[in-house]
Amino acid sequence: MLPPLAIALGDSAGIGPEITAKAWSARILHSLPPFFAVGDPRAVEKVWDGPIARISDPAQAVAAFTEALPILTVGDVGDVVPGFPDVESARCALQSLEVASGLTRSGAASGLVTGPVSKAQLYRIGVTHPGQTEFVAERCGVSGDNAVMMLAGPTLRVVPITVHVALADVPHLISSELIVAKARVTARGLHRNFGIERPRLAFAGLNPHAGEGGAIGREEIDILMPAIEQLRAEGIDAVGPFAADTMFHARARAGYDAALCLYHDQALIPIKTLHFDDGVNTTLGLPIVRTSPDHGTAFGIAGRDEANPGAMIAAIRMAAAQAERRAEAAANP
Amino acid sequence: MLPPLAIALGDSAGIGPEITAKAWSARILHSLPPFFAVGDPRAVEKVWDGPIARISDPAQAVAAFTEALPILTVGDVGDVVPGFPDVESARCALQSLEVASGLTRSGAASGLVTGPVSKAQLYRIGVTHPGQTEFVAERCGVSGDNAVMMLAGPTLRVVPITVHVALADVPHLISSELIVAKARVTARGLHRNFGIERPRLAFAGLNPHAGEGGAIGREEIDILMPAIEQLRAEGIDAVGPFAADTMFHARARAGYDAALCLYHDQALIPIKTLHFDDGVNTTLGLPIVRTSPDHGTAFGIAGRDEANPGAMIAAIRMAAAQAERRAEAAANP
Repeated sequence: MLPPLAIALGDSAGIGPEITAKAWSARILHSLPPFFAVGDPRAVEKVWDGPIARISDPAQAVAAFTEALPILTVGDVGDVVPGFPDVESARCALQSLEVASGLTRSGAASGLVTGPVSKAQLYRIGVTHPGQTEFVAERCGVSGDNAVMMLAGPTLRVVPITVHVALADVPHLISSELIVAKARVTARGLHRNFGIERPRLAFAGLNPHAGEGGAIGREEIDILMPAIEQLRAEGIDAVGPFAADTMFHARARAGYDAALCLYHDQALIPIKTLHFDDGVNTTLGLPIVRTSPDHGTAFGIAGRDEANPGAMIAAIRMAAAQAERRAEAAANP
Repeated sequence: MLPPLAIALGDSAGIGPEITAKAWSARILHSLPPFFAVGDPRAVEKVWDGPIARISDPAQAVAAFTEALPILTVGDVGDVVPGFPDVESARCALQSLEVASGLTRSGAASGLVTGPVSKAQLYRIGVTHPGQTEFVAERCGVSGDNAVMMLAGPTLRVVPITVHVALADVPHLISSELIVAKARVTARGLHRNFGIERPRLAFAGLNPHAGEGGAIGREEIDILMPAIEQLRAEGIDAVGPFAADTMFHARARAGYDAALCLYHDQALIPIKTLHFDDGVNTTLGLPIVRTSPDHGTAFGIAGRDEANPGAMIAAIRMAAAQAERRAEAAANP
């Protein structure tokens, strides 16, 4: 049996503690594997009156999991108020991310699931990473271009090649080299973490109608097509560039395993339109398994028992499936 | 009773003739009002063996409609081959658009429905309009900024504020003035053509997370917010700018009547993801009603009896509903 999964609770004032507790409550219904939370137990107690087992070692989690939500205590947030983040709740989020990452890296946890954090608050305490993906990648010794953020739902997987940058900067930031690097990691990750033997990658164009042969933008011709040719020469099943607007209806989605998009909204509009409540953010290219519910801290509803744990449950299930697949591959190389 | 609708068949080699004929076959099932096609009857005969009534005046269409598809002959495409467009089929498309627009403008038709055309072929015969929307607007004496392209499906309406331009040009092309102009037309059109008393307009940001308060792009602060304030000052219900990726899931869509987006794919990705087979393109701000199925010529399947008439049927129904609403408003000012 694999070690338990580690869940970093995210910002104590957000919905992370609530959806983690609700996921534990739904563990039998959704056949969830053992997991333990990393964070301040008081943040969970504030929003949930179920059983908690304070553990001091991940090895205690599996036994405790059947009767209570195991929590490895990290951080001291003082008097956390759901819905009101501050530097203390951000500091706790950072510590739990650090500890949960380290435990997964060490093998004490079989995969890392990260709860939502407030970037604004993390910036205030000096964090410079654009997001948790980059933080975890750095802790794993992987450079930014070699860590790939993928958003995955039941009927669609997307990869944004650029992420948290202004739209005006996107045309300058994309290059054939960047696209090839991200696509290689995506293809390897779909094989290694999702068990897809020969992943099919579909590329979105940057411009309307993929530029109409150069009539409305040349990035498809100058940047995307050389990248796609390079990938094909390496034996990767890469097609496109396609008009982005006609790539995401049901019949089109059946034709590929992941859509590679050039900017944040090109990838996130379709995935959140289709899978707002069960989308998972997963990082490919890391030595560890890492997933996250694809939503924010939702401070506006924190502490009201209104948060939907669907995406957290999906993130836990995906982390477990990826961890099993990698363990099997390691056992049968 | 209103006059019939006029349907310009679009490119003779595309699926326009087939979906128009299939819509006629489904007229009772979908309660379609009388309409007549404008184009070359031989293009229909090539792909359909149902009854055709060649008419010489729109006034003959209503009587003929019960027993046959009325066609007002325009163009002479010679030997049209489905799937193989050429300058002849484009010339026919242009003539049928011209005649159908004119008949609608004159009141002989109560609304205009346009079938799909090939822009590449139209460019070859000297057409300089970016699309049929601009062509029809010009024939109606309306300038580009005052004609608004809206894509509408059963659960979402979107307006792209810029359309067929390279993504790199979008940040330079958007301005508060342009946004205000397009939004005014949208609000008026939702009232006049859709019968929405006080339309709710939601604006998408340009940058990821709507710029995160200026951290990743300032267009939201410098351009969008002043435009939204201006619209509110005029009494228009305008909200945003919102993060575009979280605007299009079902709960979010319930909060507005139309989403105003800044560029082609921001608007067209969500509408085509949700309503690929029944999306309608409609033009607001014109003296006439104009709709169109929201898809292309589909040359790849033309002539194979595989084309889905769903969007054409939806376009006909929407044109009829808009025409009725405008006639009622004219009768009860």
